[in-house]
Amino acid sequence: MKILIIGAAGMVGRKLALHLLATGRLGDQAVTEITAFDVVPADLTAGKDGPALTIRAGDVSDDSTVRGLIAARPDVIFHLAAIVSGEAEADFDKGYRINLDGTRHLFEAIRAQADYRPRVVYTSSIAVFGTPFEEPITDTFITAPLTSYGTQKMIGELLLNDYSRRGIFDGIGIRLPTIVVRPGKPNKAASGFFSGIIREPLAGVEAVLPVDDDVRHWVASPAAALGYLLHAATMDLAAVGPRRCMTMPGLSVTVAQMLAALADVAGPETAALVRRQPDPTIRAIVAGWPRDFDPGRALELGFTSDASFHEIIRAHIRDTGHEQQA
Amino acid sequence: MKILIIGAAGMVGRKLALHLLATGRLGDQAVTEITAFDVVPADLTAGKDGPALTIRAGDVSDDSTVRGLIAARPDVIFHLAAIVSGEAEADFDKGYRINLDGTRHLFEAIRAQADYRPRVVYTSSIAVFGTPFEEPITDTFITAPLTSYGTQKMIGELLLNDYSRRGIFDGIGIRLPTIVVRPGKPNKAASGFFSGIIREPLAGVEAVLPVDDDVRHWVASPAAALGYLLHAATMDLAAVGPRRCMTMPGLSVTVAQMLAALADVAGPETAALVRRQPDPTIRAIVAGWPRDFDPGRALELGFTSDASFHEIIRAHIRDTGHEQQA
Repeated sequence: MKILIIGAAGMVGRKLALHLLATGRLGDQAVTEITAFDVVPADLTAGKDGPALTIRAGDVSDDSTVRGLIAARPDVIFHLAAIVSGEAEADFDKGYRINLDGTRHLFEAIRAQADYRPRVVYTSSIAVFGTPFEEPITDTFITAPLTSYGTQKMIGELLLNDYSRRGIFDGIGIRLPTIVVRPGKPNKAASGFFSGIIREPLAGVEAVLPVDDDVRHWVASPAAALGYLLHAATMDLAAVGPRRCMTMPGLSVTVAQMLAALADVAGPETAALVRRQPDPTIRAIVAGWPRDFDPGRALELGFTSDASFHEIIRAHIRDTGHEQQA
Repeated sequence: MKILIIGAAGMVGRKLALHLLATGRLGDQAVTEITAFDVVPADLTAGKDGPALTIRAGDVSDDSTVRGLIAARPDVIFHLAAIVSGEAEADFDKGYRINLDGTRHLFEAIRAQADYRPRVVYTSSIAVFGTPFEEPITDTFITAPLTSYGTQKMIGELLLNDYSRRGIFDGIGIRLPTIVVRPGKPNKAASGFFSGIIREPLAGVEAVLPVDDDVRHWVASPAAALGYLLHAATMDLAAVGPRRCMTMPGLSVTVAQMLAALADVAGPETAALVRRQPDPTIRAIVAGWPRDFDPGRALELGFTSDASFHEIIRAHIRDTGHEQQA
């Protein structure tokens, strides 16, 4: 089985590639070849006996580049590449070029191949929803994005549904919650503090909380994200019907609940490293984000969420090699 | 005030052009110039004292053609051009080229003009909805189209919302009900019989009804469609918010109610010209169409529906010069 990962240098894409390289399997199939594509070469190394690995760097908005990737006729294509929310808002042309044109090039490159109907796993986002929300947001609520990123992701969902309905490929779209705890350095994303208030204290470093403790958000761990991708790639799509895109089961948790879990798992002195410093700009942005979902379809179709926020923290500690402190 | 109508040779576009030519006004503004664009030259003639009329034919999927239209910087742009449902399903490339690329070219041509923020009135369709439905369908129900046409119209809605949100133009999207009674000859559209069962008997001709009498659908007259367009072009858009596209108020009527109204208005002998000849294919297609809406937002924003199906029939009789027979 040949696998193409578009967006393999990103946090989730790389985690997926590492998993496939290490296990050599996707469901009950052996993985023979992995092509890891991104705008920069992904930091990956093939094992001795595992799948062959090809690392390629390029631009998904370049039609011929995408055709070249599809010419190898991968069996499963993970499409995770995107200009993220902040950058797509700041650079209108770049967002549409990568997120819309790039996705369309991929879908058209597949259509151009005769007798070829791969599985396409597309990562969308809860940014396809915009205020005012119903609460919780169900699977039949209007997708009315309020960012260019959310607009572009939603257009990708519509295209994925239509191309799948017409039998061009077999698509499945998964709307990722905000991923917590993201490893690595703090970044400037407005959502970054959700990871920062866990990651930094666990590393013994002070973290800034720019919003109120009662802010509620929809989150999932990196491990849960990997689980969604693997399930999407292997599940029976005949049961899904024409609405191929759905919200993944996250956890709806408040900042207060996150910090209480941090104190439970790592001790109150660790949780005390979070300093409250309200930021009106971030507060306003976060006020427009969804707080809670009823991801009924995804649950019925076998997607699973993290067990608890405590477990999200423990998994992060295991992944980063930190000692559990309490 | 300069007005551009893209799709001016179609039934609704031409009706709009004729109205503007005859009245010389849009709301409280004088119309000085009308450009009527379509793939074929629209059948229109300027009056002596009315607005200047330019008739142009071309392809909206040609970028430079669209830039040429926008170079004149019209104040109001009506975008009605589309490959319709059946053809967009039969010709995948043509549907995406005209309905998606054409719309994007238009929006990009506007963005390319400095210091220019026209009003854009975009006609969408209830085809943006797909089964299973809530009933009635409200303004917060998911738009999950089941045709390529509906997909393309919905992508246009998303783009219109995003370009409006970013201040590139001031957009408003109106989802038209099925238009009944369409004048002219019977056509092969699956929805054609909704007009045929009124139009043909009024002309003394037998009409075939391919579905059951209890089939319910969402309809509006050509006059109501003109009313939506004029209101969309003149209403205060500040009250609309970021969700710029909405379902227009139609009438939810069954075939039985349509035929009863026909008997009331034109006599039972006219209604008796409808012959029941079930067609399993059309029955199956129509079973997937929406039956009823709660168009709350459109009503709040001042859009109005036909008074009754009786009135739709009477208006058709007036328009076509037939004598009322009962």
